[in-house]
Amino acid sequence: MSRVLEPDDPDFRTRVKTSFSRQEFMATLGASLELIEPGEVHIALPFSTQLSQQHGYLHAGAISAIADSANGYAALTLAPADAEVLAVEFKINLMVPASAPRFLARGRVLRPGRRLSVCLAEVVALNGHDQEVIATMLSTISVRPGVGPSSTGDVT
Amino acid sequence: MSRVLEPDDPDFRTRVKTSFSRQEFMATLGASLELIEPGEVHIALPFSTQLSQQHGYLHAGAISAIADSANGYAALTLAPADAEVLAVEFKINLMVPASAPRFLARGRVLRPGRRLSVCLAEVVALNGHDQEVIATMLSTISVRPGVGPSSTGDVT
Amino acid sequence: MSRVLEPDDPDFRTRVKTSFSRQEFMATLGASLELIEPGEVHIALPFSTQLSQQHGYLHAGAISAIADSANGYAALTLAPADAEVLAVEFKINLMVPASAPRFLARGRVLRPGRRLSVCLAEVVALNGHDQEVIATMLSTISVRPGVGPSSTGDVT
Amino acid sequence: MSRVLEPDDPDFRTRVKTSFSRQEFMATLGASLELIEPGEVHIALPFSTQLSQQHGYLHAGAISAIADSANGYAALTLAPADAEVLAVEFKINLMVPASAPRFLARGRVLRPGRRLSVCLAEVVALNGHDQEVIATMLSTISVRPGVGPSSTGDVT
Repeated sequence: MSRVLEPDDPDFRTRVKTSFSRQEFMATLGASLELIEPGEVHIALPFSTQLSQQHGYLHAGAISAIADSANGYAALTLAPADAEVLAVEFKINLMVPASAPRFLARGRVLRPGRRLSVCLAEVVALNGHDQEVIATMLSTISVRPGVGPSSTGDVT
Repeated sequence: MSRVLEPDDPDFRTRVKTSFSRQEFMATLGASLELIEPGEVHIALPFSTQLSQQHGYLHAGAISAIADSANGYAALTLAPADAEVLAVEFKINLMVPASAPRFLARGRVLRPGRRLSVCLAEVVALNGHDQEVIATMLSTISVRPGVGPSSTGDVT
Repeated sequence: MSRVLEPDDPDFRTRVKTSFSRQEFMATLGASLELIEPGEVHIALPFSTQLSQQHGYLHAGAISAIADSANGYAALTLAPADAEVLAVEFKINLMVPASAPRFLARGRVLRPGRRLSVCLAEVVALNGHDQEVIATMLSTISVRPGVGPSSTGDVT
Repeated sequence: MSRVLEPDDPDFRTRVKTSFSRQEFMATLGASLELIEPGEVHIALPFSTQLSQQHGYLHAGAISAIADSANGYAALTLAPADAEVLAVEFKINLMVPASAPRFLARGRVLRPGRRLSVCLAEVVALNGHDQEVIATMLSTISVRPGVGPSSTGDVT
């Protein structure tokens, strides 16, 4: 890590919690915020058959959802007070079938930027005391002055 | 496209429908199969606030879920009768905020393979007669002899 | 394609040619500009053993180099006259071993933006009259007011 | 890391060196092997104007070339004695303009597999005692029984 990760806005935890509570998809999935530190955010997701793919594993879309939100909020912890974050793109490797009672996405900022931040998340399957990394996501996050829900502007 | 895309298994439509019906996450999202042709599968998703991110747009995880399933099933249309498909990895560019009453993911096989297939999906926002491509996903799909839901084997 | 691709700067061909001639790596590889149209740029590369990997195929780094430049210059054709382009990130699928006397990277803009453009390139192996798509690259390109070679600013 | 990384073949260092010496593109770039350990390989590249892009920085294709080879050889250190490795795909984030006298790509295996391994590389700019991570690459590597240079088989 080539820079010290210092939050611009001392109120970063409140901002992440407020934004997360507005992500209704997180509630639909059953996901919860587990950790908010400068440059790092963790989101947990209990398994449910309602989130499964054809073999009974957690669907890659659900894995991606928590990893994407963890990376976006990791970037938000380091953004100015009035900034919004949006994923420009991400890539995820699904390394092991997602079979466990509980999953944790750990998003971390690799490189914070004024316009774009790069984040890396690992998704871990939690089974009692066992942990296994099942997926890795590398994301580019756009950091911009706040836009409201009625905005029709481009990500680009 | 450098190869004619011919299904190995004449019953490919039934296989895609059966597998899709087992993806409980698709029902949870409200997604439906719209087209199954050799090398191409479309999946539709009506917008719902339960699928939203913090600005009220469709969450990237929901966009990814339908694009990932469309690409996987596009690969399945060309796979042998006993084969299963699993996404090894994908990368998605989210080009425009996902704001529309309905979305359609169109997955297509770029290169079918015996072990790995490469697929490209576009996700379109549908608003009356308007269509706009809002996301593009490039996926690597593993094609393997069938493994049951009780398998604990690696994707790798 | 949801937008008509119109160049902002009528002199876009000259700008692409000038910038390409400054990319000394293109000359080192032996690459040449083959086509410059609004939203589309082609770059050719003859095979040479000096560009090979361990099995004698064209190295993925050389394939990536021409696809990355084709996508960047495709974005430059649509950028304002004073703008520079830089790849923020890209993802490439290497679908077939790169074995041919000549290769062509065709970069196209999927979505032009004021700050970021998304481009898709295919790399084709040319062997007499035969063509085969051997690789596909999906890129995010930063479009910014001009920065000179002495700039030390971040991509981000 | 969820597994101990143990080489299958005690002669893994010789295999990596032999294969690297056959990658003529590495010699063309001026790259050298710097470290070969189980699950980790480092490749160094001195800057040269012959490798530059339009602003005088190291071209993304040259950065990708050493990161791709570092990841592929990291996978090879853990592969069976008769196996070959080929990149199926990779994604790279270019976080900072590549301006330094020397660069080092450090490839590491995140998840070794019998058929596919997932690797993560960071590329560091070295300037005297300063180090800065300028790029991150996430790769999927195919691990297969040996194929010779005359093979015409698919990557897929």
